[in-house]
Amino acid sequence: MPRYKLLIEYDGTPFVGWQRQAKGISIQQSIEEAIEKFCQEKTPLTGAGRTDAGVHARGQVAHFDVSRELDIEKMADAINFYLRPKPIAILHAEKTNDDFHARFSARERSYVYRIVNRRTHLTIDANRAWHVIGDLDWEKMHQAAQHLVGTHDFTSFRHSECQAKSPVRTVHEIKVYCHPERSEGSDSKEILRSLTLPQDDIFIYISAKSFLHHMVRNITGSLVMVGSGKWSVEDFIRARDERERAQGGPTAPPDGLYFLSVLY
Amino acid sequence: MPRYKLLIEYDGTPFVGWQRQAKGISIQQSIEEAIEKFCQEKTPLTGAGRTDAGVHARGQVAHFDVSRELDIEKMADAINFYLRPKPIAILHAEKTNDDFHARFSARERSYVYRIVNRRTHLTIDANRAWHVIGDLDWEKMHQAAQHLVGTHDFTSFRHSECQAKSPVRTVHEIKVYCHPERSEGSDSKEILRSLTLPQDDIFIYISAKSFLHHMVRNITGSLVMVGSGKWSVEDFIRARDERERAQGGPTAPPDGLYFLSVLY
Repeated sequence: MPRYKLLIEYDGTPFVGWQRQAKGISIQQSIEEAIEKFCQEKTPLTGAGRTDAGVHARGQVAHFDVSRELDIEKMADAINFYLRPKPIAILHAEKTNDDFHARFSARERSYVYRIVNRRTHLTIDANRAWHVIGDLDWEKMHQAAQHLVGTHDFTSFRHSECQAKSPVRTVHEIKVYCHPERSEGSDSKEILRSLTLPQDDIFIYISAKSFLHHMVRNITGSLVMVGSGKWSVEDFIRARDERERAQGGPTAPPDGLYFLSVLY
Repeated sequence: MPRYKLLIEYDGTPFVGWQRQAKGISIQQSIEEAIEKFCQEKTPLTGAGRTDAGVHARGQVAHFDVSRELDIEKMADAINFYLRPKPIAILHAEKTNDDFHARFSARERSYVYRIVNRRTHLTIDANRAWHVIGDLDWEKMHQAAQHLVGTHDFTSFRHSECQAKSPVRTVHEIKVYCHPERSEGSDSKEILRSLTLPQDDIFIYISAKSFLHHMVRNITGSLVMVGSGKWSVEDFIRARDERERAQGGPTAPPDGLYFLSVLY
């Protein structure tokens, strides 16, 4: 049976998450139904990662099999036609090999978490970022975050009901980056790039082969403990080493999380 | 009477525009009502610029007078309290002089127009950008745009019902900038900054002392004519020189327009 690969973008706000479930509309179900309308065949869709309700994607990847050959040129347009007006878009579609598996073939997944750090509530960025009020020291957050790079037991940062067999994961890279002040940038290209974002953004970029349930959100919540001064970098390392979820920081809301890309 | 100055951000999507009108809720009316709730006094709010329905602001400025002294520390928080859950936020409030006028004292206003140039419909960026499907040559758009810098008669780019006495305006700067491909950037800070934006963004930045009605949207629509190859740069210059609205390009939708800042 031919196998097809999709590159997917979505606004997670109105969905119960990636995975199909009884209590509401999921992204998986929405795309499965659109595929069925296009190719007249029921087929399960396998995603590279399960995102929670409210989490967004710029580059989710998924695969599905159907019994007949599909017209690749028409496929993305057709699935998109049936998806609208839901905020899910197939950015790219291609035929792939039988041995490609969206979940198991992945070598690296990356996420970015976006925080707007200011006193005032969000307007343009509502549901697109976590609004954190007190001043955050992003450099200290970056410093603490470096203690997660490499292979560690992430029990303190995974959901207590996470079903992965092992709590050990390998983080390839993690960077905390502050959006520059407009006045600081002298290069107008740099300024332009940032013009439609607020001037108080903090981004946390993280890549790993795979992640545990709530891992990025729990790491983010813990880094915010450091950034707000409630924890020192040493407290953060201690939380990591305790290997107990209760020792980790709070779970950051889904609004600021973006599933960015998957490498195969 | 003490005069106060506000720095304002809003998502223009649910509003009829900045200006108070009978047919729906405006940003001006929303803030005036919040001020009234806070200081128990009806007072008109004067904005630096009138934005159309659906147009956003990162840095609108407005002023108002009230008969008694207000607590500046509490003011922004209090107005924001009464504004919520509307997507309008007072980013900053301060007391100013009697001779400050949000509209007439402005030396420069700047806008940015954001286009997402790709085949697929928008999800995360719906109502936040103009979705243009065919490939745009942003370098040619930038080249054409340079012919608007300086003092010109902008009749071809103003709303046929624009009420300004003179169609002559002075554009200080206009730049068209393409969001870099992720793969091109080797500096991870640069990459990070752009992570939550799609990879097909084109920004048009424009600054001038003042603008005519629909001027930025009509300029954008005309630049897209150039970017899509329907017009040459010479056609664009000719459209400008015809001084007739019918010779200008179409009006770009409000979704991609952001009122960025005002200099005094």
